Amino acid sequence: MNNGDGEIASRLEKFTNELFPICRSITGQGVRETLRRIGAEVPLRTLSYTSGTPVFDWEVPPEWTINDAFLEDPNGQRVADLRTNNLHVLNYSVGVDKKLSLEELKPHLHTLPEQPELIPYRTAYYQRNWGFCLPHAVYQRLSSGTYHAYIDAEVKPGVLEIGECFLPGETEDEVLFYAHTCHPSLANDNLSGIAVSTWLAKWLCNKEKRRFSYRFLWGPGTIGSLTWLAHHQHSVANIKHGLVLVLLGRPGTFHYKQTPFADAPIDRIAARCLRKRGDEHEIRPFDPYGYEERQLCSPGFRLNVGRLSRVPHDEYPEYHTSGDNLDLIDGRTMAEALVLCQQIVDEFETRECFINIEPFGEPKLGKRGLYNSIGGRAPAERVEIMLWILNLCDGNHDLMDIAERSGYTLETIRELATELTERSLLKPI
Amino acid sequence: MNNGDGEIASRLEKFTNELFPICRSITGQGVRETLRRIGAEVPLRTLSYTSGTPVFDWEVPPEWTINDAFLEDPNGQRVADLRTNNLHVLNYSVGVDKKLSLEELKPHLHTLPEQPELIPYRTAYYQRNWGFCLPHAVYQRLSSGTYHAYIDAEVKPGVLEIGECFLPGETEDEVLFYAHTCHPSLANDNLSGIAVSTWLAKWLCNKEKRRFSYRFLWGPGTIGSLTWLAHHQHSVANIKHGLVLVLLGRPGTFHYKQTPFADAPIDRIAARCLRKRGDEHEIRPFDPYGYEERQLCSPGFRLNVGRLSRVPHDEYPEYHTSGDNLDLIDGRTMAEALVLCQQIVDEFETRECFINIEPFGEPKLGKRGLYNSIGGRAPAERVEIMLWILNLCDGNHDLMDIAERSGYTLETIRELATELTERSLLKPI
Amino acid sequence: MNNGDGEIASRLEKFTNELFPICRSITGQGVRETLRRIGAEVPLRTLSYTSGTPVFDWEVPPEWTINDAFLEDPNGQRVADLRTNNLHVLNYSVGVDKKLSLEELKPHLHTLPEQPELIPYRTAYYQRNWGFCLPHAVYQRLSSGTYHAYIDAEVKPGVLEIGECFLPGETEDEVLFYAHTCHPSLANDNLSGIAVSTWLAKWLCNKEKRRFSYRFLWGPGTIGSLTWLAHHQHSVANIKHGLVLVLLGRPGTFHYKQTPFADAPIDRIAARCLRKRGDEHEIRPFDPYGYEERQLCSPGFRLNVGRLSRVPHDEYPEYHTSGDNLDLIDGRTMAEALVLCQQIVDEFETRECFINIEPFGEPKLGKRGLYNSIGGRAPAERVEIMLWILNLCDGNHDLMDIAERSGYTLETIRELATELTERSLLKPI
Repeated sequence: MNNGDGEIASRLEKFTNELFPICRSITGQGVRETLRRIGAEVPLRTLSYTSGTPVFDWEVPPEWTINDAFLEDPNGQRVADLRTNNLHVLNYSVGVDKKLSLEELKPHLHTLPEQPELIPYRTAYYQRNWGFCLPHAVYQRLSSGTYHAYIDAEVKPGVLEIGECFLPGETEDEVLFYAHTCHPSLANDNLSGIAVSTWLAKWLCNKEKRRFSYRFLWGPGTIGSLTWLAHHQHSVANIKHGLVLVLLGRPGTFHYKQTPFADAPIDRIAARCLRKRGDEHEIRPFDPYGYEERQLCSPGFRLNVGRLSRVPHDEYPEYHTSGDNLDLIDGRTMAEALVLCQQIVDEFETRECFINIEPFGEPKLGKRGLYNSIGGRAPAERVEIMLWILNLCDGNHDLMDIAERSGYTLETIRELATELTERSLLKPI
Repeated sequence: MNNGDGEIASRLEKFTNELFPICRSITGQGVRETLRRIGAEVPLRTLSYTSGTPVFDWEVPPEWTINDAFLEDPNGQRVADLRTNNLHVLNYSVGVDKKLSLEELKPHLHTLPEQPELIPYRTAYYQRNWGFCLPHAVYQRLSSGTYHAYIDAEVKPGVLEIGECFLPGETEDEVLFYAHTCHPSLANDNLSGIAVSTWLAKWLCNKEKRRFSYRFLWGPGTIGSLTWLAHHQHSVANIKHGLVLVLLGRPGTFHYKQTPFADAPIDRIAARCLRKRGDEHEIRPFDPYGYEERQLCSPGFRLNVGRLSRVPHDEYPEYHTSGDNLDLIDGRTMAEALVLCQQIVDEFETRECFINIEPFGEPKLGKRGLYNSIGGRAPAERVEIMLWILNLCDGNHDLMDIAERSGYTLETIRELATELTERSLLKPI
Repeated sequence: MNNGDGEIASRLEKFTNELFPICRSITGQGVRETLRRIGAEVPLRTLSYTSGTPVFDWEVPPEWTINDAFLEDPNGQRVADLRTNNLHVLNYSVGVDKKLSLEELKPHLHTLPEQPELIPYRTAYYQRNWGFCLPHAVYQRLSSGTYHAYIDAEVKPGVLEIGECFLPGETEDEVLFYAHTCHPSLANDNLSGIAVSTWLAKWLCNKEKRRFSYRFLWGPGTIGSLTWLAHHQHSVANIKHGLVLVLLGRPGTFHYKQTPFADAPIDRIAARCLRKRGDEHEIRPFDPYGYEERQLCSPGFRLNVGRLSRVPHDEYPEYHTSGDNLDLIDGRTMAEALVLCQQIVDEFETRECFINIEPFGEPKLGKRGLYNSIGGRAPAERVEIMLWILNLCDGNHDLMDIAERSGYTLETIRELATELTERSLLKPI
């Protein structure tokens, strides 16, 4: 990693540090603030959808406002306090201000008996409920007596917000990146994805030229992608490739989850970039659980969207607990993921399909100075490669296919295809 | 095997015992009588086709009536007698009443030199001929002198009859079962198939509800299926699945012969039911010789019809001889085959393809009480399975495909698909 | 090899001996003379294309006439002389008559430092240049002083000539054979291909009956096939199969290079004929370098054309040098290749696709005398095979497919398919 990367690592870390304390949810002030911070880095349009708007089988939920929340034990000690850790409050809790016995309280308490020191992350988006989340160790020490449960919160009509950064390119064909914004103080899941995608968008903003259009979406999980899809059904066809970015800050091997098709261009390109890195990684087939690929790859859409993460959600012990905090992630780990994403983008940007416009036999390379001037010798290797390219640029093969078929590197194929294009023998399609 | 099965074994055995003595052929009194007995067990419609009716490249043959037949040696001893064993007469022999020398007689005698104690089963449907079938041991002891060949038979215009039991179901999609009825006193081939199919039809008659329509055909080999096909060309498309039932009474491993497609639903279901049984069995690819699958899978029809037997026709020594008699088969063996057929039917009855009717993203399982009410935890396994089902019920996959893909059992998939259907998220197709 | 083969070997050898001294190029007197000799063996039409005629991305080049050429050293010794070996002159050299120093001369000299005793074969078709080719050993001994470079040659408007032998058959479907004629005194590349193809055409001329039409083309490499293709674009569709014949005189294992489709009939037939020979051979996938398959398999044509050679061009050390001379090849080696080509032709001649014209069930074989007259016995093997044929002659399978599927030999399948055709049950398609 060079100094530039070190600097980016610092900035990613700073960004996640700033975002960490915010109490996010699928709607509300925390999301708004998060989008504002993202918008300070990249040009962002905030899409607002009014509560109650029908979204396929769903509807946009009421908005959650949380001001304060604590749970006092019989001695007046706060055993849970939003200000200490926003995981302490059941996300989407309605307001409550009640004295109640331990027995009455217990149904509202959530703990992790097997990880007794950690606060669980729990939600109740689609029901009117309230609750507190505690370390099991604390829970076990609770004495009987009267508790004070106080949550200053409202669930009322408002909006659901999605941040969108659309970077038009030379074609309407889009590459989509999605990172979910609904998790409160959880670092790996998914501040890491938010940070990496934001910096990826920044980098793409600064590119002079983009062949593809890029669309970044930062929105809540599930209802966010559904809402966006429901309002963009007619333009969804432009999304030719996509990647869900999650869990990129905790060190661990990269995992790429394939599209349902397993051989979409994003599948081959992601695999290729991972292979290039040289270190261990894992490629897994599509399954219908996970993050936004669930919606984007549903039968009604079946988009070519894969998912890039490091260790997947259900496979690291800190997942959805207070253990997923800033200590768990680091900037260099995110910077590495950013570089990988940049490599993937570069692959798309440089990936081109060409068509041979002199397909009837071989064109006369010699008159363009491309063939050995003295014949009879073995042709220069570059001539052989040009013949591969000319032969396979038949509308069905892209340069990567040609590289794989001919045994030459993509770089070499690309270089010579460019030359052939300049010579008016190929044209990009 | 429970008592019920023991009782069914007895009844199957009784049925084959009753049918055994009848001298069947492709037409005539023996078939008529056989269909009458089947009709005593299940609702049967007899389809009659007049001799001479064109049937593709064939025509319905004249009808054969056989009253008596014997061959007396020079000493007046009967060396062949229809009343002793109807295999003694060449099936479809015309009438003869002739004294003739051994040399004149010999071209009309059929034996099995390699199985000298057995009478062969021989036919002459489509030529005017007569003959006797003898054990080769008897043949070798024939002394010279004058023989009396007497066959009281007629081959004259009449009808060809096919028994049909059609059991309508909820859909017009049909499962076809075919057992041939043309063999005289041969037990395994195919009284066993007739018995098993009859009891299968009885069982299906008594089912309260049938998803598929079932069509049982009992008719002669080759000309029977051809005649039926020729007269039902426009409804043949309803036959979605089918099974030819033969050779099910002689103990031996089950053999399933695939359709020409090798991966038709009947192929997968038959294989699955055989695997479930746990004991040895064999699955073979389609070949164009055999029983009615020859016609049903011909290029003009290519129906999804497999064949279920135990040891195939050309692989058991008693095939087409007097050794294929009631001693060779037993009721329990047939009852086992019946159970297997019932399992196959059950698979079809319970096999369902569904379509996700909320295919745009995931439907909101929570509002239907199907999703964890408190979010943030790993979803219940049933939720994961539902996601598999919703994702793959795209019109291309059936539940078995989903089971295989997801690694859950078909039973589990089916249970949750049913639930999703009840919740109006899937509908059967 | 029988006496006949021995005689053919002698005649092939005599033919290559006669052709060897001729100084061929892509145009000119050497080609003309070569085509005249081929025309003495087979009916030949010479197609002439005027210099300057546009040919796709190319144009027909001016014609080269070479009368004499030598290079004298300062002592008046000829270190290169067209009359000694026509490889000494850079093919397509323009005229020169010049005294010049060794340093001035050097850019015009071509040698093979790694094979110092051999003269390289070098060309300059598409530039105005002159040069001499020398053994590197000679080159290294050249002393300084004044050299005399003399080439009596002209490059001026004329014609490009292609020899064509078209042998009409029962159908317009063509099998194409191409051998290039542009190489001067090089024996394996490609007098061997010219000789084998000429004798193959002779043999085909004498066939009483040809199912396919055969087209033999003898023309220069690259510009020859391009010119022919450009002038026959509308009839190219008739070329259903084809084979480029090259490098067949130098002993070595046969190499078959597949079409881009890898499973075209020529691919399967060539592989089959090679397997039949029993000895070692190699089958390689298509690549875009090589001989006329480069043009014939280009994206605009994608003809089913493979290539038959022994050791390929870039894998034998004498390739494109004076080492590729008459000592390198022998008649028996070429005769073997001829036999292989004849076997391939025989496969095409006997290869037939049929359609079952009684596809609805099995046709009545018995009424055509094709089925056992006495039924009940295992069918004759020929009946089983007929059933295979009738079942698989569905328009998608040819007889070789049926042979492979049924396990019977192609010969057997063919014999019975012929019989079924005679019986009006199949018809060729």
